Amino acid sequence: MIKAKGYAAQSPTTDLAPWNFDRREPGPHDVQFDILYCGVCHSDLHQIKNDWFPGIFPMVPGHEIVGKVVKVGDHVKKFKIGDIAGTGCLVDSCRVCENCKRDLEQYCLNGGSQTYNGLEQDHKTPTYGGYSNTIVVHEDFVLHISPKLDLAASAPLLCAGITTYSPLRHWKVGKGHKLAVLGLGGLGHMGVKFGVAFGADVTVLSTSPKKEADAKKLGAHHFVVTTDANQLKAATGSFDFILDTVSAEHDLNLYMSLLKTDGVHICVGVPSHPAPVAAFSLIGGRKSLAGSGIGGLAETQEMLDFCAEHGIVSDIEMIDIKNIHTAYDRMLKGDVRYRFVIDMATL
Amino acid sequence: MIKAKGYAAQSPTTDLAPWNFDRREPGPHDVQFDILYCGVCHSDLHQIKNDWFPGIFPMVPGHEIVGKVVKVGDHVKKFKIGDIAGTGCLVDSCRVCENCKRDLEQYCLNGGSQTYNGLEQDHKTPTYGGYSNTIVVHEDFVLHISPKLDLAASAPLLCAGITTYSPLRHWKVGKGHKLAVLGLGGLGHMGVKFGVAFGADVTVLSTSPKKEADAKKLGAHHFVVTTDANQLKAATGSFDFILDTVSAEHDLNLYMSLLKTDGVHICVGVPSHPAPVAAFSLIGGRKSLAGSGIGGLAETQEMLDFCAEHGIVSDIEMIDIKNIHTAYDRMLKGDVRYRFVIDMATL
Repeated sequence: MIKAKGYAAQSPTTDLAPWNFDRREPGPHDVQFDILYCGVCHSDLHQIKNDWFPGIFPMVPGHEIVGKVVKVGDHVKKFKIGDIAGTGCLVDSCRVCENCKRDLEQYCLNGGSQTYNGLEQDHKTPTYGGYSNTIVVHEDFVLHISPKLDLAASAPLLCAGITTYSPLRHWKVGKGHKLAVLGLGGLGHMGVKFGVAFGADVTVLSTSPKKEADAKKLGAHHFVVTTDANQLKAATGSFDFILDTVSAEHDLNLYMSLLKTDGVHICVGVPSHPAPVAAFSLIGGRKSLAGSGIGGLAETQEMLDFCAEHGIVSDIEMIDIKNIHTAYDRMLKGDVRYRFVIDMATL
Repeated sequence: MIKAKGYAAQSPTTDLAPWNFDRREPGPHDVQFDILYCGVCHSDLHQIKNDWFPGIFPMVPGHEIVGKVVKVGDHVKKFKIGDIAGTGCLVDSCRVCENCKRDLEQYCLNGGSQTYNGLEQDHKTPTYGGYSNTIVVHEDFVLHISPKLDLAASAPLLCAGITTYSPLRHWKVGKGHKLAVLGLGGLGHMGVKFGVAFGADVTVLSTSPKKEADAKKLGAHHFVVTTDANQLKAATGSFDFILDTVSAEHDLNLYMSLLKTDGVHICVGVPSHPAPVAAFSLIGGRKSLAGSGIGGLAETQEMLDFCAEHGIVSDIEMIDIKNIHTAYDRMLKGDVRYRFVIDMATL
């Protein structure tokens, strides 16, 4: 086994702290890469706190992982030592179900292996994430990241990036569409960048008027303060799509009233509690409330290649791993522009 | 003015009772037809009871109206005296908004004129529905009904019919799709007939095992008792579409778990209260929760023509108008197979 070190929560009520653990030796199809950077996702906090479901402890969070390949198995074809590699929210899936076969590993019907707080495909061995120094992943779940990109700033592409890229592609959002991005955080700011890159007319919806300048700097064409009744009224019935990146509780009916007929409200944030939806919010205009989770491996690579081509990365704030709890506190207050990334050299 | 008579609720707390009122003389583009049959829709009861919003009283309900033309305006082109005519949920709309221009009058952005409990396009004159002896409607909102069809049994096509036909067409439900119809009532039984006619593999989801024989008689291929945990488990992840016709409160998350990846749950029933929707119900499989309301005029005529061609009508129980409250009571208990229709000769 490989001796690895990382930061783990030993239980949902304890802070993250240094922890030593084992990772498997790379098998014939595995890639081992040393982790340079790992993004900090809101879902890391949800999971170490058992907000969504009972977790597997000790838990090493982190699923926005970028590093340098140090070892490859004999049969590995796609990577060689020294390559820049990335891994997102998945490290494996069943590969045989209907969804895996059509490149939708994120919806694996037999249960994909989450990068942390999950189980390998033996359905026994826990997975440990990217708040650590090294990781071993089957090459099919390792992604190429262009060395042209700022590597620290590309870590968040592996979750925040694909989570916003995938639904915009799936619903074919682009030229001629009015897209609203709800919430300007880690996901939201990537939604703005992709929406703009795809040619949509992009509006940021935010409760915080202070974010307007930033929204415009990110490329948004318009900004609506959602606590301002007049601005909200003016925006009623105006959007083809809303990309909803908010993980806190919020009133879906209010936002759906901003959609045009046949508009689609796409949830990518995951609030802890169900939200009440009125039948008239859907029926009055044949609207849809949809959801989308990350993306498949092929699409994640496509997104990374698109980012390399268009020079898109995340706006980040680099942190020392020992400041992770301060980062969580600031993240909860929305006080981050727009993603914390752990410099793993500080481990 | 034309002296008309009907049944009206004078307030949300009084029973329906005979009432005399005026209708306008037919204008140059109007058609007057004497009402032969009027269907009884669950929404009639919701509206006379102010369940959804404060209504306009006195209220003459009824928006599944079939009759015989007795007078036409000078400029009327589509109808002549003696024709069979129908009117559904709308008697007018603004005709100039984006939605009206693309044959989606049901989503008129300036507020269409509901057949009852609404206002004419002068935004002043109340509309009165089909629980009455005669009606005057602009010819653009009057539909042709084939005399080949059973006329009483075609009345419910004007609301229950189009409400289920339109979403199945919009989402292109047909061959190769597994369609679940949730609730086997006035809407549900039409959903089954159309789903079968369009070539889908149709399952009825019902809390009542007693409805299985009927469901099969209507053409459904399968039947799932939703209170049976084993049957529900077997149906998990199996449907492309759920057509949800239920107007009572029910657990959307439970039913959405029965959808495949990319499945769509389409609400056409209107419960009085918002329903809680969990983000994971949407995100875990890129699912959509959608809604659809009746249909535009062109599509309603298309549906009526389709019904004439395929011999599709509603399964009805004819009633005397003085028994309307008994009919409501039975409707609330689901004790109707599958739509009450008032024989207007009993007025």
